[in-house]
Amino acid sequence: MKKYCFGIDVGGTTVKCGLFTVNGEVLDKWEIKTRTEDNGVNILPDVAETILQKIAEKKIDKELVAGIGIGVPGPVNEAGEVPCAVNLHWGYVNIVGDLERMTGLPVKAGNDANVAALGELWKGGGAGYHSLIMVTLGTGVGGGIIINDKIVAGSHGAGGEIGHAHVDDTITDPCNCGNCGCLEQVASATGIVRLAKEALAASDEPSLLREGRVSAKSVWDAVKAGDALAIQIAERFGTYLGKTLAVFCTVADPQVIVIGGGVSKAGQILLDYIIEPFKKCAFSACRETEFALATLGNDAGIFGAAKMVI
Amino acid sequence: MKKYCFGIDVGGTTVKCGLFTVNGEVLDKWEIKTRTEDNGVNILPDVAETILQKIAEKKIDKELVAGIGIGVPGPVNEAGEVPCAVNLHWGYVNIVGDLERMTGLPVKAGNDANVAALGELWKGGGAGYHSLIMVTLGTGVGGGIIINDKIVAGSHGAGGEIGHAHVDDTITDPCNCGNCGCLEQVASATGIVRLAKEALAASDEPSLLREGRVSAKSVWDAVKAGDALAIQIAERFGTYLGKTLAVFCTVADPQVIVIGGGVSKAGQILLDYIIEPFKKCAFSACRETEFALATLGNDAGIFGAAKMVI
Repeated sequence: MKKYCFGIDVGGTTVKCGLFTVNGEVLDKWEIKTRTEDNGVNILPDVAETILQKIAEKKIDKELVAGIGIGVPGPVNEAGEVPCAVNLHWGYVNIVGDLERMTGLPVKAGNDANVAALGELWKGGGAGYHSLIMVTLGTGVGGGIIINDKIVAGSHGAGGEIGHAHVDDTITDPCNCGNCGCLEQVASATGIVRLAKEALAASDEPSLLREGRVSAKSVWDAVKAGDALAIQIAERFGTYLGKTLAVFCTVADPQVIVIGGGVSKAGQILLDYIIEPFKKCAFSACRETEFALATLGNDAGIFGAAKMVI
Repeated sequence: MKKYCFGIDVGGTTVKCGLFTVNGEVLDKWEIKTRTEDNGVNILPDVAETILQKIAEKKIDKELVAGIGIGVPGPVNEAGEVPCAVNLHWGYVNIVGDLERMTGLPVKAGNDANVAALGELWKGGGAGYHSLIMVTLGTGVGGGIIINDKIVAGSHGAGGEIGHAHVDDTITDPCNCGNCGCLEQVASATGIVRLAKEALAASDEPSLLREGRVSAKSVWDAVKAGDALAIQIAERFGTYLGKTLAVFCTVADPQVIVIGGGVSKAGQILLDYIIEPFKKCAFSACRETEFALATLGNDAGIFGAAKMVI
């Protein structure tokens, strides 16, 4: 009977690490630096070292460790290989093969956004459910799809790349992905600033947003203060996202949609602006799909990573 | 070692039946009438009777039968229950429980469109792949999603209900589902006729379509004849469908997209009109997703049903 597992979330600057019981109790949480120099050759050895140190420090019987789950910012195939991961300066890396060899423990690897979605399903906003669409509204729009407790990685590693759903034909400047009109361009923090700038330019209406720097946070603060122009922006944001989520539900039909990322700090009011247009466009059977805010914040990755090996 | 299985596809007027080897060889194929009177109480007993008769007729050892797979036109949950199936006049029916009791054989049940998708993955246009999006362009637009050889049934039975993806804000007349602007309203046979009527009304341009009754077939025939107005219609159809499939791929990222149904009889030219806008909007990793025409026609349902029990 296994008792422990490790959840590792590799980011561009730090590696978040967690030691868990197989029931999801956090026993320890720490970070190490992500050493991206030399094509990131040190990243996996550093992860292996910190895990083996932790096992020694806690005097854990290695036989009782179920394994190591690890999320990385890049596409991960079923075999646990990455063709390349730009933020880590990696070309091809066999994560599972390398980390198993270095630690002598079973390893499972996944894309960081998908792994975070699994974390929210296990112990976060989607706890108690078995299928979810997770939307992470940060600088970009990330996502993860879980069906029957399993990550939908996609045949090209693009499962849950919902930020790059095409939602607007009129946008002519390119998204980071090279296409034009992606959801990310209108629903991320950056996208909300775009909508705000457009709204401010289109009218002379007084608005709190005309004072100081416009950010996703300042927009939602103004919405909460009843600012009419900010409310228009929130409606446009919500319409883009709600309509697109309704389309996603005709494919995956999850039990719950979980919204996370920095923008989701606006709270329930953000969900309200999404849910109304969602209901208007959703297929009848999906109309009452649950919405929830993510609750694990930056820890979703280590939770989801740990869950992969249980 | 099991040797045989049955695939049953229940439609509103006939029940298609197939006796297969577990390798997918068709040993026999026949139909019975769907008796929908009296809330369809006779449908499952009729299915049980025809199967037991076939087993007797072919002198098959019942021990060698892996089971019965059955597709029905309605939402089917994981337990094999249907809350209601309008075309069969059914209210709640426990398909798996009832049919197992009547036949003494293991039963699996699924929604007919999802089951047909599984059939195309097993022995049709998606053979050799493990994940697919199937689009059936008939009177309506049906669909099915398969990921890792498994049907995505959805938590409300709406997995693969892609005909009801919202694709156009400007359509104000309702779809059969009650919403406005569904993919089905512009990409089904009926939808193509809608697009044709709009195109014919919007210009005085001469066109083959001004002679006789306009149908999806007459539009594609005119496209093949080089008719400029018909080509405009095909481009609009392809843009709706290609763009929406690109969005679906950010969720499910399948290996192949299979297009079937009556409209797909137009052949490769239909795919060409879909693929160009698909590539324009697809996330880079999904851009080279394969497209294929369905090959099993009306037999996709019995193949997929049989596959469920193997």
